[in-house]
Amino acid sequence: MRASELLFPTLREVPTDAELPSHRLLLRGGFIRKLVAGVYSYLPLGWRVLRKVEAIVREEMDRAGAQELLLPALHPQELWQQSGRAGREDLLRLTDRGERDFILGATHEEAITDLVRQDVGSYRDLPFILYQIQTKFRDEPRPRGGLIRAREFIMKDAYSFDRDHAGMNAAYDRMEAAYERVFARCGLQYVKVDAEAVSMGGVEAKEFMLPSPSGEDLVFICPSCGYAASGDMAEYAAPQDGGVPHAAPALEKVSTPGMKTVDEVTAFLGVESARLIKTLIYRVGGKPVAVLVRGDRDLNQAKLSHAVNATDIALAEAALVREATGAAVGFAGPVGLKQMTIIADHELRGGANYVTGANEDDAHLVNVNPGRDFSVDQWASLRLVTGGDPCPRCRAPLEERRAIELGHIFKLGTYYSDRLNALYRAEDGSSRPVVMGCYGIGVSRIVAAAIEQGHDDNGIIWPLGIAPFHCAVVIVNLKDQAQRDLGEEIHRRLDEAGVEVLLDDRDQSPGVKFKDLDLIGIPLQVVAGKRAGEGLAEVRRRGHRGAEFKQAQAAAAWVQEQLAEAGMRS
Amino acid sequence: MRASELLFPTLREVPTDAELPSHRLLLRGGFIRKLVAGVYSYLPLGWRVLRKVEAIVREEMDRAGAQELLLPALHPQELWQQSGRAGREDLLRLTDRGERDFILGATHEEAITDLVRQDVGSYRDLPFILYQIQTKFRDEPRPRGGLIRAREFIMKDAYSFDRDHAGMNAAYDRMEAAYERVFARCGLQYVKVDAEAVSMGGVEAKEFMLPSPSGEDLVFICPSCGYAASGDMAEYAAPQDGGVPHAAPALEKVSTPGMKTVDEVTAFLGVESARLIKTLIYRVGGKPVAVLVRGDRDLNQAKLSHAVNATDIALAEAALVREATGAAVGFAGPVGLKQMTIIADHELRGGANYVTGANEDDAHLVNVNPGRDFSVDQWASLRLVTGGDPCPRCRAPLEERRAIELGHIFKLGTYYSDRLNALYRAEDGSSRPVVMGCYGIGVSRIVAAAIEQGHDDNGIIWPLGIAPFHCAVVIVNLKDQAQRDLGEEIHRRLDEAGVEVLLDDRDQSPGVKFKDLDLIGIPLQVVAGKRAGEGLAEVRRRGHRGAEFKQAQAAAAWVQEQLAEAGMRS
Repeated sequence: MRASELLFPTLREVPTDAELPSHRLLLRGGFIRKLVAGVYSYLPLGWRVLRKVEAIVREEMDRAGAQELLLPALHPQELWQQSGRAGREDLLRLTDRGERDFILGATHEEAITDLVRQDVGSYRDLPFILYQIQTKFRDEPRPRGGLIRAREFIMKDAYSFDRDHAGMNAAYDRMEAAYERVFARCGLQYVKVDAEAVSMGGVEAKEFMLPSPSGEDLVFICPSCGYAASGDMAEYAAPQDGGVPHAAPALEKVSTPGMKTVDEVTAFLGVESARLIKTLIYRVGGKPVAVLVRGDRDLNQAKLSHAVNATDIALAEAALVREATGAAVGFAGPVGLKQMTIIADHELRGGANYVTGANEDDAHLVNVNPGRDFSVDQWASLRLVTGGDPCPRCRAPLEERRAIELGHIFKLGTYYSDRLNALYRAEDGSSRPVVMGCYGIGVSRIVAAAIEQGHDDNGIIWPLGIAPFHCAVVIVNLKDQAQRDLGEEIHRRLDEAGVEVLLDDRDQSPGVKFKDLDLIGIPLQVVAGKRAGEGLAEVRRRGHRGAEFKQAQAAAAWVQEQLAEAGMRS
Repeated sequence: MRASELLFPTLREVPTDAELPSHRLLLRGGFIRKLVAGVYSYLPLGWRVLRKVEAIVREEMDRAGAQELLLPALHPQELWQQSGRAGREDLLRLTDRGERDFILGATHEEAITDLVRQDVGSYRDLPFILYQIQTKFRDEPRPRGGLIRAREFIMKDAYSFDRDHAGMNAAYDRMEAAYERVFARCGLQYVKVDAEAVSMGGVEAKEFMLPSPSGEDLVFICPSCGYAASGDMAEYAAPQDGGVPHAAPALEKVSTPGMKTVDEVTAFLGVESARLIKTLIYRVGGKPVAVLVRGDRDLNQAKLSHAVNATDIALAEAALVREATGAAVGFAGPVGLKQMTIIADHELRGGANYVTGANEDDAHLVNVNPGRDFSVDQWASLRLVTGGDPCPRCRAPLEERRAIELGHIFKLGTYYSDRLNALYRAEDGSSRPVVMGCYGIGVSRIVAAAIEQGHDDNGIIWPLGIAPFHCAVVIVNLKDQAQRDLGEEIHRRLDEAGVEVLLDDRDQSPGVKFKDLDLIGIPLQVVAGKRAGEGLAEVRRRGHRGAEFKQAQAAAAWVQEQLAEAGMRS
């Protein structure tokens, strides 16, 4: 391909509304253009990268035995009502001229389950995995970061259909392995974390995350043993139970007039916030439950949900707090609480002589010791982990990192088949719900994520696997016959060898060409420049130091070696 | 690929709401499923066919030098307001939670022109051709025929951008040649017709049509010389001017009380409707114009528009008719009409002694002769052609055929660049509008059109170029070891040779397998059946008579020969 015939309008100025490096570089390099907030056109260079990601995804899905299909974007609203998700806030809705209501597909569990319920009759039809690479629509209120969080974006979504949970688990494992291959081939240094599954009605889930300062999610990674988990799912090593100290002072009530917050109370009493026990009154299935975490910690509601095995939980309103504790919000404590389950975070075992509310307005207790002054009905992991917490496996300090979600895999069980009535006839003649899994990859997001991972001040550094071209050949000065001949020869050799090569034959200054070359980030670079008269071109790798001069044939061979070393076919 | 691992749920019953053969067979063969009226899921078999059509389109577009990109489906409504098309009835509209209005892309002239106006500065940036293969959305009030006219469908749309009309014409010619290759490779026996261009603001257009009883459009084809045109654009050979007959009787006024229609007048007077001149009063740019066509003909308004060189034309309302002619609607005639242009269809030259309105209520004139009794300001081609009309080139009778539109090519000129301000800086420093063409192919419609062209009572007969598999190998009885071994061997040989082969290894009755085989229409069939014990498989072509028995190696070789003869690489 000749650069003179390729539309890639590069920009020298940094677009003002683009904050993330990938967003800025995709715009500057002529990979994408904004049509309207969160909605982008993919220009030829951007489309090439997308198609390479798609091809990798497709090959690995096919290899895993998944079958490709394509589902529509226009969904009848009734279908989402059946699954109970029609009220989701991020759905784009429309009405046709016949007054029928539609939802634009934000995800396709409903559509695929509708398809499968029509055509699966017997256990003989199962199992299978279906996937598509398709455009999704979401009414993101704050689209950000270009392709990181768009309103119209490309996803690969796959769905597995099995007779039972064992089948689903096998499909899930197969998809997990396929995902590892996909992200490795895309050159992404991902971490795989346990993810929250309950809120989508599932039973187990993992996310593939790319650590990056531009990420919107948190992950905790143990640099020592490799443990990794999402912010919601991360655990920490609970301290040993210290027991009640031998010489623990006696419980004492102190007056704390109007002091309702942790900060107010601890400042007033002159203690660290780690010495306070926060007592949160939750309403779980209609009943109050006292939830205890250390004063300097935040409750992880997903974990509480898991600990009490219920999804309909909420902080109790003031009236219920008063009824249950006898005091206003801010003065609850575990001592003397009656007819209420007390559930406490493991970490509280490690301390002693805590401050708690006194269950009485304007009063707290000091020198409170679990075991002595109150009993805990259930110890559980309840709090959000923070950087520096001990790894739950090896106790090394966890690192807190921001990360970009690249993909997720999810055991859905029968959540959708129950609601949408997707049944099959089992071998024993009974009718059973199909057991499902779902598996997503953010195809267009990968394009941006790869740039977040690989860029410098001059531009993008593409991984070889998804670069728009493997190699660029630059004719520095188009008026120099030797440079032109050398560039053309190397281009021809590489093109004939099947290498994806871009020849920069534009009538532009050397400065523009070199700037563009680094900006668009082609990994392998061959420059026909000042030593072309000697028959020598310079070869180098984007983002690496050092360069060598080689004859045309040797330069082409060098490119092919680099590709072979990286496991690419040319 | 093994049929036991492929989801293609065939149906024995004919779906009741499917009228067209392609719709019925796509449903029955497990190629598509309806999600909601006019909106279909493509199952794995259907998706394979679509991907093959896409691949052909992509190869030919790339070969023609077009660059692929991808534009969004979500368009800001303002953009369509700028082009003046926001009011189109077939647009699907939506509003997001921020109260912004969007239109779902029904076509992409606006979006591509917006892209190009941002990034094209100078004449050096031109020319180029951009294309995409993308999902379109239209609010069809009556979606019909499955993939023939859907509300969500896949199109290839291309747009050319040039400095001037000469450049546009060259791009148009290149696209025309590419289209011929695309449809030929898809195995479609298309005709290419001149099409109406004015209504889209263009200057010239052609349509690629597949003659089929299921078509929604009309084309006229000359079986003798190959002339072909769309219903709107078809011409006929005008008769020689007969002149006023030597012994023409004198003009005479007759009373025709309340006789306003052609049928009423001609029945009352006892003459053929071909002997009447219909006089239609049109309002053209505010002024009345008298338009004459023979009584048994229909006016082609597009041709009138072309003849008077105006697009804002409409039948005059009753008051204007009375003002202009002095009579009620139904009694207008050319004799004595003053201060009004008279434009007449060529065909009227061939007759004499016509009946016309008398420009007086309840009266007509008989023995009216053009030239003697009134003069014509402009002779023109004004009427709709009908089957049997003489070919405009060779005078053989034209055939009227229904047809399916497969694609169109269109010289837009500066229609969109003027409205959307897509300008470039010319070599002389002046600012000029980019000159555009647009080029569409109905990718998903091709899948249905190919079936309309090729099917029989048993199912689909795919053209080799877009069949979901080139070849099917059937193991008739899975319990017969010899059949199984033979089928597996042939499958393995073909698979290794790169042939797209489906092995029917399902545990189904021979009847089901043979019915499915014909239904899904795989062109080349190899059957491992009753003579497998002798090492012989039967080879045959779908839709052809005759079959032969061959050894495994010879059977595989036969398949490869068939592909080679058809110019397919295996």
